[in-house]
Amino acid sequence: MALHQATASAPVNIACIKYWGKRDTKLILPTNSSLSVTLDQDHLRSTTTSRADPSFERDRLWLNGVEEEIKDGGRTATCIAELKRLRREEVEDKQPNEPKLSTYAVHIASYNNFPTAAGLASSASGFAALVSSLAQLYSLPVSPSTLSLIARQGSGSACRSLYGGFVAWDQGSNPTGIDSLAREVAPQSHWPDIHALICVVSDDKKGTSSTSGMQRTVETSELLQHRINHVVPQRLKAIEEAILKKDFDSFAQITMADSNQFHAVALDTEPPIFYLNDVSRAIIALIVEYNRVSVAAGRGRRAAYTYDAGPNAVIYTLKENVKEIVELVVKYFPQREGSFKDVFELFAGVDVAATEGKVVEGFNEAVAKKFEVGAVKGLIHTRVGDGPRALGKEESLLGANGLPKTLKA
Amino acid sequence: MALHQATASAPVNIACIKYWGKRDTKLILPTNSSLSVTLDQDHLRSTTTSRADPSFERDRLWLNGVEEEIKDGGRTATCIAELKRLRREEVEDKQPNEPKLSTYAVHIASYNNFPTAAGLASSASGFAALVSSLAQLYSLPVSPSTLSLIARQGSGSACRSLYGGFVAWDQGSNPTGIDSLAREVAPQSHWPDIHALICVVSDDKKGTSSTSGMQRTVETSELLQHRINHVVPQRLKAIEEAILKKDFDSFAQITMADSNQFHAVALDTEPPIFYLNDVSRAIIALIVEYNRVSVAAGRGRRAAYTYDAGPNAVIYTLKENVKEIVELVVKYFPQREGSFKDVFELFAGVDVAATEGKVVEGFNEAVAKKFEVGAVKGLIHTRVGDGPRALGKEESLLGANGLPKTLKA
Repeated sequence: MALHQATASAPVNIACIKYWGKRDTKLILPTNSSLSVTLDQDHLRSTTTSRADPSFERDRLWLNGVEEEIKDGGRTATCIAELKRLRREEVEDKQPNEPKLSTYAVHIASYNNFPTAAGLASSASGFAALVSSLAQLYSLPVSPSTLSLIARQGSGSACRSLYGGFVAWDQGSNPTGIDSLAREVAPQSHWPDIHALICVVSDDKKGTSSTSGMQRTVETSELLQHRINHVVPQRLKAIEEAILKKDFDSFAQITMADSNQFHAVALDTEPPIFYLNDVSRAIIALIVEYNRVSVAAGRGRRAAYTYDAGPNAVIYTLKENVKEIVELVVKYFPQREGSFKDVFELFAGVDVAATEGKVVEGFNEAVAKKFEVGAVKGLIHTRVGDGPRALGKEESLLGANGLPKTLKA
Repeated sequence: MALHQATASAPVNIACIKYWGKRDTKLILPTNSSLSVTLDQDHLRSTTTSRADPSFERDRLWLNGVEEEIKDGGRTATCIAELKRLRREEVEDKQPNEPKLSTYAVHIASYNNFPTAAGLASSASGFAALVSSLAQLYSLPVSPSTLSLIARQGSGSACRSLYGGFVAWDQGSNPTGIDSLAREVAPQSHWPDIHALICVVSDDKKGTSSTSGMQRTVETSELLQHRINHVVPQRLKAIEEAILKKDFDSFAQITMADSNQFHAVALDTEPPIFYLNDVSRAIIALIVEYNRVSVAAGRGRRAAYTYDAGPNAVIYTLKENVKEIVELVVKYFPQREGSFKDVFELFAGVDVAATEGKVVEGFNEAVAKKFEVGAVKGLIHTRVGDGPRALGKEESLLGANGLPKTLKA
């Protein structure tokens, strides 16, 4: 008997124009459009294997080897049901010879290659990989935009992980959500020199979850409405233009302004929500000073920080500046020996000890104090990447018995 | 020959509705109205002695015993010139027998009874004391509101220190600034049980000055306009009502929301301005939790935090709750032995060791971690107070030689 199985991987995305607030919490329809950069799956990814089999009794899901309950009417159940419906309507009803996979239960195993402790949201890449693997399993003849409608119902920002490159999530206006989907602004190949440095920041404090936090902002912030109606529409247009023109200075200015404003409306919430801590603030001060020097030298802004619902910084910059920025960050946030994975070989053959302590010419070192080792727990260097990938059988996460190959107790 | 001299003291005020942004930087006309509580001069005050003498060669000013230059066209010079003008027009021109004090130079000595290191803005009480002592010296037949017009040109928020109790600064609309002045909403006697606990917070970072910070916000924050036009007018009305009705729950809700929003627009500035640090955030978390428990018990909010342009917290509460709040703060922010000046004898006869570690029933202790000694450097307990006071000769800060009694090198 045939094995009905598919494996896909999907990328993380980090927004430049932030999603914060739902107008429909069930369908996950946002109060404003957003835009993100898809990061390279070579470094950060979720991988998912889905298998349909008549012998399976019910839909089951394992995340990093641990079974997760699929709640009736929950987000995962909604995604699976929608994909089964497409299988039936778009494939089985039209081609009666195709196997009736929509009637079989599925087993799904998913794995993130980045530790949860890194504080990177895995729901976007996770739901994008889930939707991609099932779409592949079901041979669905649909576009990434259509799949993004389904991924959106798993986790809002997951819809943006259905494309590589630079991706907008248009908020749409239809109450059914049919026009609230991802749109590719430009592919990875348009501007491959956009790199990202993720600074993983330690935090004592358990943050407010974004799901509950954003609705509190919708309910209590008086500034959010102004952001939604008057600020974001203009910014989205301006940053799309900056991306198409590869205008890094504008891209950086808008990205930082929107990160600031997202955290501003979080603070304007009752009770207030804080995601940035003293380490986050110090990284902002470094980037502001780095750009001040760069602008003064006529080179424009060369780095952009952005923060999601947590203290980690993501610094976007062009490839040519990454080494300088890593050195700058490490000067203020010393790293444990060997903790930086130099995937682009920035420091290959470089005598690090010799350059230590040097900073950018004209840089005011007093903008931040030097922190102790561990304040920034790790640095991850990556870049803009492609969309979900179909992987071969050899990458399967499910064993012959239909259970994950690496099961955890 | 007669000694023409007067000594006055003036209070600090801490705003509940924040002033942030000028529409005229020379006249110091604000972009929005504000409202503050005047704090008790028994605890925190500026004292100023002014003397006019034909032998003085030029106007001179000493602050805490150190001479400060009076710059031509500067804020201090403007205040002195305005008061001399009133002396001439309202006194000397109308009563020709009065001495022509407006033609004499003045010596002014001012002293703050709180250390600069406490991080409390001294410009409000300082300019209010300067204006009050000169008005007294000149026997000006004018109201505190008229004097507030002059103090405003020294330092915006100084105008609110011309009254005791609860004071509004109406923004006005006249380009000359004639209607941008302080107005007493209610005197101290209306609600004397409003107490304040100031938590003096250590900070590594030199903050952005409010003068430059607020103008950067005016120039770059897209959210500020919404705050000015749509939020503050309603809030001001609501908090005045809460004060008149002695409705602490509403007073607290509005005070905290406005502190949050002020810091939100600071964050929405380019580059962003941060005044709150991790210690400030932890104090907010304590007050939010304290109120959650209180609201759940049907008692409404019983404490309100507010933060000016720095990390220090001011916690407003009713007299009956201060002891509990001091205990709570000290639990998370241990104080050096004997550092808390218990001016209201909250702990007289109380066995502190026995109560240590106890918190409010139902309080979730995990909302903040315990900090090391020194994170909160000191606690100052005070309450709503009266307006500027005329002091007797024995309080004079100037010696017979016309120089400060305590001169510093």
